[in-house]
Amino acid sequence: MDLHELCARLHRIQVSSMCDADKSLPVCDPLIRPMLADVTVAGPAFTVRAEGDLLGMVAALGSAAPGSVLVVDSGGDPRACSGELFAGEAARAGLAGIVIDGFCRDLRGIRRVGLPVFARGATPNSGTISGPVVVGTPVRFGGLEVRPGDVVFGDDDGLVVAAADRLAAVIDKAEAIERTEAGVAEAMATGTGLYQLTNAAEHLAARDHGRPSTFGYRSTTG
Amino acid sequence: MDLHELCARLHRIQVSSMCDADKSLPVCDPLIRPMLADVTVAGPAFTVRAEGDLLGMVAALGSAAPGSVLVVDSGGDPRACSGELFAGEAARAGLAGIVIDGFCRDLRGIRRVGLPVFARGATPNSGTISGPVVVGTPVRFGGLEVRPGDVVFGDDDGLVVAAADRLAAVIDKAEAIERTEAGVAEAMATGTGLYQLTNAAEHLAARDHGRPSTFGYRSTTG
Amino acid sequence: MDLHELCARLHRIQVSSMCDADKSLPVCDPLIRPMLADVTVAGPAFTVRAEGDLLGMVAALGSAAPGSVLVVDSGGDPRACSGELFAGEAARAGLAGIVIDGFCRDLRGIRRVGLPVFARGATPNSGTISGPVVVGTPVRFGGLEVRPGDVVFGDDDGLVVAAADRLAAVIDKAEAIERTEAGVAEAMATGTGLYQLTNAAEHLAARDHGRPSTFGYRSTTG
Repeated sequence: MDLHELCARLHRIQVSSMCDADKSLPVCDPLIRPMLADVTVAGPAFTVRAEGDLLGMVAALGSAAPGSVLVVDSGGDPRACSGELFAGEAARAGLAGIVIDGFCRDLRGIRRVGLPVFARGATPNSGTISGPVVVGTPVRFGGLEVRPGDVVFGDDDGLVVAAADRLAAVIDKAEAIERTEAGVAEAMATGTGLYQLTNAAEHLAARDHGRPSTFGYRSTTG
Repeated sequence: MDLHELCARLHRIQVSSMCDADKSLPVCDPLIRPMLADVTVAGPAFTVRAEGDLLGMVAALGSAAPGSVLVVDSGGDPRACSGELFAGEAARAGLAGIVIDGFCRDLRGIRRVGLPVFARGATPNSGTISGPVVVGTPVRFGGLEVRPGDVVFGDDDGLVVAAADRLAAVIDKAEAIERTEAGVAEAMATGTGLYQLTNAAEHLAARDHGRPSTFGYRSTTG
Repeated sequence: MDLHELCARLHRIQVSSMCDADKSLPVCDPLIRPMLADVTVAGPAFTVRAEGDLLGMVAALGSAAPGSVLVVDSGGDPRACSGELFAGEAARAGLAGIVIDGFCRDLRGIRRVGLPVFARGATPNSGTISGPVVVGTPVRFGGLEVRPGDVVFGDDDGLVVAAADRLAAVIDKAEAIERTEAGVAEAMATGTGLYQLTNAAEHLAARDHGRPSTFGYRSTTG
């Protein structure tokens, strides 16, 4: 599966479904959260170091391929790494989003632009634009090591980052989980309970008696 | 007063009014906050341990009485303890809410369901569903010890938890405070100042002169 | 420039523009954030100590001049320093806002009132109203020392606090930055890229070759 197809398919599902398909997917620190509601971002990482200086951001905006996600390591600097202008340029250039282990600013402008921006919060001041430029190297991000080209996948629940192959290996399973859960949610909306839709009662009884058992949805809901 | 009546009356007032009626009511860590706006939750605690495993949640959803609040102790585990499906089942089963000292997921789905869910935030991955089941025991929650049957009362401002008797003992006073404050708010909306509505000036003068005094609203506003 | 004119001009720009005009402006801890969206606050600080007791707040509401911002130091106390009633009285009295290094309560009421309130979050319980009154002294606030009369300027991105003279010295520059950036944002909205609107390419090349260079917008956009 090519990267374009992978990202397009990720865009149609939830991050939580991928995490269910592969329980060991690397998840970022949940304090890095979307700055606007109801967003999904999926794309290859273009990494940037922005420790109090934003020339790397300027360089990245000029060289990242459309569809990329800028993955910004602020190195713990308290100043904003992106505002409305960078978000606007990223949107104009067709980038998929900007995710920052650090702060952003111009929250109103970012919301107006509509580009998915994830950060630890907002602060009004930003760094210099002097350099040096450090882009395209592995960076620390939200407790993970992110390499250029790793795929960033995020929504309201948070961010996962992994090699494209690893995500491609489980996306069929994630899509199947979504179909099953959509059926379950639909059945629940019409009044059917979780215990009728799953083997919960049998599973609990089996565990009580020390018998092996796996929790799951009844096949009729599959 | 029976529990049903207590919870129905709590539902009509603010948590802050109960905290004014009893200044020593136990308040949870404010980092545990509602995941949707404009919610109120009031009900007896059904406690669950969910330290990286959700079988206790499944068991709790099958056995908690309608009106209960699932009080979930994640033991500091970084994975989500509830998503859309558990929230949907809780709503279907008539539970009053789910409060988590830990994380949830499926924020969009939880908001769609509309059940009050409180948590430290969202993260996309969840634990196993293998067991053991630990429910109905005292748990640590947001800095408090919560026992099964304690009443959980929360709104946009946060959560208090206390024995039903303790809340029942002060709810009359809390309702009276709300009536007084509603009158004050109404008077302020028409331009009357806080100093005219309270004994603020006299109270400040008395304190200046070392005379005992208690701040309060003028009886005409009561 | 008098204080009234300064605050009126601040009200029409973003905090981030002032931070660009003076990169060393003191910025508060970003965990102190607005409790309602799309707010701007600008006014001289009226300082209050409220370490578990709110008589200082009552005194401040009775003596702060219209246009003032109550700057509240909770001394780390976990209880709320302001709710709907104090916010309502502040609005009625023509104050510009309440900023709290600590917690507030009555979030729904505060949003109804519409006064800009900044805090670390919400919690339902508040302190006593017994005294002593400590107002009008220098306070610690979000990592800064704030003196009475310092100007507080905040919006969705956060808060800066500085002497009026210091802000007055750079507001022309901040307004010029806003005009330039508005032109840039407009050009970008019609499809022109950041690289065409700035000297980004030349600046990056100069830095690569060790030549001095300053990043900036092209004069045609100024």
